[in-house]
Amino acid sequence: MTWLDQVAWNNDGLVPVIAQEHSSGKILMFAWMNREALQLTRETGHAVYYSRSRNKLWHKGEESGHTQIVHDIRLDCDNDVVLLTVEQQGGIACHTGRHNCFFQQLQNDDWVTVEPVIKDPKAIYHE
Amino acid sequence: MTWLDQVAWNNDGLVPVIAQEHSSGKILMFAWMNREALQLTRETGHAVYYSRSRNKLWHKGEESGHTQIVHDIRLDCDNDVVLLTVEQQGGIACHTGRHNCFFQQLQNDDWVTVEPVIKDPKAIYHE
Repeated sequence: MTWLDQVAWNNDGLVPVIAQEHSSGKILMFAWMNREALQLTRETGHAVYYSRSRNKLWHKGEESGHTQIVHDIRLDCDNDVVLLTVEQQGGIACHTGRHNCFFQQLQNDDWVTVEPVIKDPKAIYHE
Repeated sequence: MTWLDQVAWNNDGLVPVIAQEHSSGKILMFAWMNREALQLTRETGHAVYYSRSRNKLWHKGEESGHTQIVHDIRLDCDNDVVLLTVEQQGGIACHTGRHNCFFQQLQNDDWVTVEPVIKDPKAIYHE
């Protein structure tokens, strides 16, 4: 039984993944991996996710250049959640051009954006 | 449209939730909430999750006493992941009696337990 077999993949063959920034401890993003993505993440040292909307591997930063260098890979007590500790290249993890994806804070009864856009997404993605 | 309506609940009416410790920045656990759980979390200031295995609300710490006092509630860019920042009562978030659930670290090709059991689960749960 290999380390990949020990992961409790869900019915879709995926596992949820939390990416945390090594230097700041901030949560950068949340995504999914299939077996191949986790294997590639391990082999290359760069985060590779599985895009559920595009149904394919997603080499984080393949378009933006905002790759994630992996420091640590952890598995939780039920073997069904992965935690990556990473160094975020470019300091931008979110497709909105912000440092991280968790920029909406609940204040009273509203979600308020509390993190600035560091770089215009139009300047990040050239499609 | 209320703040609860803005959450992009999945087909099961759930949203994934990451719980991060306020003081240390460490990821304590990963769980799920339904609409009622998130509303109760907001109203009571204590983390309430939804147990998919037991199909019911799970007031974190209801049995162990290891409740989580909520400091901050965040929503991600796609409105489909919640991040809680919490104060972990008793310093134990995991049902194994460890500080957090992410205690298995990938070393070479093995998942190695790298966090100690703080309290024997038998002494935490009296069933």
